[in-house]
Amino acid sequence: MTTSAILEDVFRWRRDVRHFRPEPVAEATLDELLQVASMAPSVGLSEPWRFMRVDSPTRRDAVRGIFARSQADALAERESEDAAAYARLKLAGLDDAPHHIAVFSVEDPIQGRGLGRRTMPETTVWSTVMAIHTFWLAAAARGIGVGWVSILEPEAVRQALESPASWRFIAYLCVGYPSERHDTPELERLGWEQRQSACREWVRR
Amino acid sequence: MTTSAILEDVFRWRRDVRHFRPEPVAEATLDELLQVASMAPSVGLSEPWRFMRVDSPTRRDAVRGIFARSQADALAERESEDAAAYARLKLAGLDDAPHHIAVFSVEDPIQGRGLGRRTMPETTVWSTVMAIHTFWLAAAARGIGVGWVSILEPEAVRQALESPASWRFIAYLCVGYPSERHDTPELERLGWEQRQSACREWVRR
Repeated sequence: MTTSAILEDVFRWRRDVRHFRPEPVAEATLDELLQVASMAPSVGLSEPWRFMRVDSPTRRDAVRGIFARSQADALAERESEDAAAYARLKLAGLDDAPHHIAVFSVEDPIQGRGLGRRTMPETTVWSTVMAIHTFWLAAAARGIGVGWVSILEPEAVRQALESPASWRFIAYLCVGYPSERHDTPELERLGWEQRQSACREWVRR
Repeated sequence: MTTSAILEDVFRWRRDVRHFRPEPVAEATLDELLQVASMAPSVGLSEPWRFMRVDSPTRRDAVRGIFARSQADALAERESEDAAAYARLKLAGLDDAPHHIAVFSVEDPIQGRGLGRRTMPETTVWSTVMAIHTFWLAAAARGIGVGWVSILEPEAVRQALESPASWRFIAYLCVGYPSERHDTPELERLGWEQRQSACREWVRR
């Protein structure tokens, strides 16, 4: 297989995983994923990402509580039919995943000397998003699943994890070996939404 | 080589390219990159990314003008020593690159039915950022270079490209075959900044 075919295979099997087997990932492998994530592009070479392992049962419980509240609020706002469909989805692997990793972005990094972010300051956070995506792909290439939980109140998570004030909360990742492997998104399999992007053509100017 | 080693090779050689050879990339290959980008993850399966080919010489000139102004403003704000270092950098391949691609994000997509973006609405834009990163990696795997230009006023670009009002401007990409290949960032080679992230350890809670 060519490099591009292998890469596409990684893209195809990189899913948002919500069902995990209980056995942990080896510490050396997790360290490797952290290293590989650091190869992501960043604006001005600012490398603003910060990865936090959340191991304390108390803090994990706090995050589960925040998820449950955000989830209940989201459900309450939906119309009845939509709410029924929403209620059928499993949206996070927070109970099963052996590893919890919170990702933050330094708000105004000194590293990078401000290059490239004067007119588009969001590029700093976007660099962190690409580091998360890099981590996710590196995990997928090793048969490890990642689920990105975004149904959370960022400020509540920051408090529960006592993160530095200069860090912005970006993502909460559930990490572990998936209990099933799929090359299609779970939201598509459960009938929530269909992918349409592959049929879209270039806009031209 | 294992899949993860091949993937890391793609990460290592995926650089922000600012020096391009003039020959174009085959249309079929560009279409392939667009297809592969659509495999990116997206919040609620919303696929909010929109890719625009900018071929009109007039519009390309307009974007170059916006870059030149943003660049001059950035230079004027820097202290003398810093300004001299900044002035030595080549920050965009807008003159040489055979292809210009602007990327936008639909602000409030219907697709995805709002799932996962209630408390963290930025996850929509972040999905588009991951599609850009996917495009970039797919290009790198084919020996094609991408340079992300962010020294631009988003509103001025939107006007120059007459993009729909509901789309947010995210990135302007220069695309083509690189005139040199490097496994280190240009900003590091030119002494602007050093990478530090690979030495960073987990934060623990």
